[in-house]
Amino acid sequence: MPNNFRLRIEYEGTAYNGWQRQKAGRTIQGEIEKAISLITQQKVALIGAGRTDAGVHAIAQVANFVCETKLEPCIFIKGLNSLLPEDIVIRECVLAEEKFHSRYDARCKIYNYRIFNREIPPAIGRQYVWHIRKKIDVDVMREAASYLIGTHDFKAFEGAGSPRKSTIRNVSRAEVSLKKDDLIVFEIEADGFLRFMVRNIVGTLVDAGVGKIKPDDFNEILKKRDRGNAGITAPPQGLFLVEVKY
Amino acid sequence: MPNNFRLRIEYEGTAYNGWQRQKAGRTIQGEIEKAISLITQQKVALIGAGRTDAGVHAIAQVANFVCETKLEPCIFIKGLNSLLPEDIVIRECVLAEEKFHSRYDARCKIYNYRIFNREIPPAIGRQYVWHIRKKIDVDVMREAASYLIGTHDFKAFEGAGSPRKSTIRNVSRAEVSLKKDDLIVFEIEADGFLRFMVRNIVGTLVDAGVGKIKPDDFNEILKKRDRGNAGITAPPQGLFLVEVKY
Repeated sequence: MPNNFRLRIEYEGTAYNGWQRQKAGRTIQGEIEKAISLITQQKVALIGAGRTDAGVHAIAQVANFVCETKLEPCIFIKGLNSLLPEDIVIRECVLAEEKFHSRYDARCKIYNYRIFNREIPPAIGRQYVWHIRKKIDVDVMREAASYLIGTHDFKAFEGAGSPRKSTIRNVSRAEVSLKKDDLIVFEIEADGFLRFMVRNIVGTLVDAGVGKIKPDDFNEILKKRDRGNAGITAPPQGLFLVEVKY
Repeated sequence: MPNNFRLRIEYEGTAYNGWQRQKAGRTIQGEIEKAISLITQQKVALIGAGRTDAGVHAIAQVANFVCETKLEPCIFIKGLNSLLPEDIVIRECVLAEEKFHSRYDARCKIYNYRIFNREIPPAIGRQYVWHIRKKIDVDVMREAASYLIGTHDFKAFEGAGSPRKSTIRNVSRAEVSLKKDDLIVFEIEADGFLRFMVRNIVGTLVDAGVGKIKPDDFNEILKKRDRGNAGITAPPQGLFLVEVKY
């Protein structure tokens, strides 16, 4: 009987065209599938919990694959990490139940978005933040973010050209915190995300934070489901998939 | 009368052959001097407080240069940052006193060394840590580090082939702290450092932390001034010049 392996994966997305396998261009899924195939000599399909976009990072992406092998998970993880490039690391490999499906079974996901708010851009860690010169009022940004909590139609924050059947999602947490060194972290937990949803939300929250719009305007944009009034799509390098809950 | 400009510089050393200008190979000093020359149309010598080695980073290197120009520091900094690559950032540019010399006037310097202590290597932030698999006992490492405090002959921790007239230095602080996510940070403050001194100390502290030697042995190595018994030179990417005091 084939085994269902479950992986927890950390990666820096800078050098990749996102998670999803492509005909041309390096992707996280593609690199890991290649490594699995080298070890097992089988063609394997890796299912990821979330398809992160080009340049987006993950602390703990979850993925699974089904494969006939006698290899133990503790041997598998060593083999994979020795074959993978250093910007992709398998942090955990375990045997899952036969029916476990990393995408369908995910109850909710947590994303972080990191903003570096200082006049002078950072050299250290610039790969992991969105640099914003203009002073952000964290309290105002937090007030705007509070409107996200609950079940809403997030059409206003859906990326163009990637429609989903339903744009309704439940956001259980949306926190803005100021960390040391002018680092602002936005953390959002929801039962699902539309394409570019976090980055579109962040772009609009920043509009509130710098005083371009009021927190009430943020709520209006959300309620009116109108992308036209939302802010820009925040760049990918500030975004991290930090947890998938089952 | 020429002006003496003082710079505070942040850089990621990954892509450079260290601070010091070289005939071949990119260096931090070389890149900044090139940018200054482009702006001023003069050949300028930039003096750095510390010559960081290849791959070593800085949060706040200090440097100065003397130059005839009518440009204000606030204009200079913008010009420099627009010309420099994104891994070198000028955080501050001010007019210093005529006699200010960033190297000779430095009273002491603070370096940080970051160790990532987890079995699985990191993908995120791997450019900024030394990954050590074996579990480190932070208390033992701290005890060993305590022997560094005071005025000692640091011959045991001097890199080969780079002798200084005197190898006596005064260490005013040597702290080991455990940060979240298995990050161990060693912070050392001294009136001066020998070449590779911090990295040689860290390599030997880690020997104590993983139980290869005892804290007393660390003290013996220091007192006997014998490089032969010291640990390996820790890799450059964990090291940060964090402050220069005047």
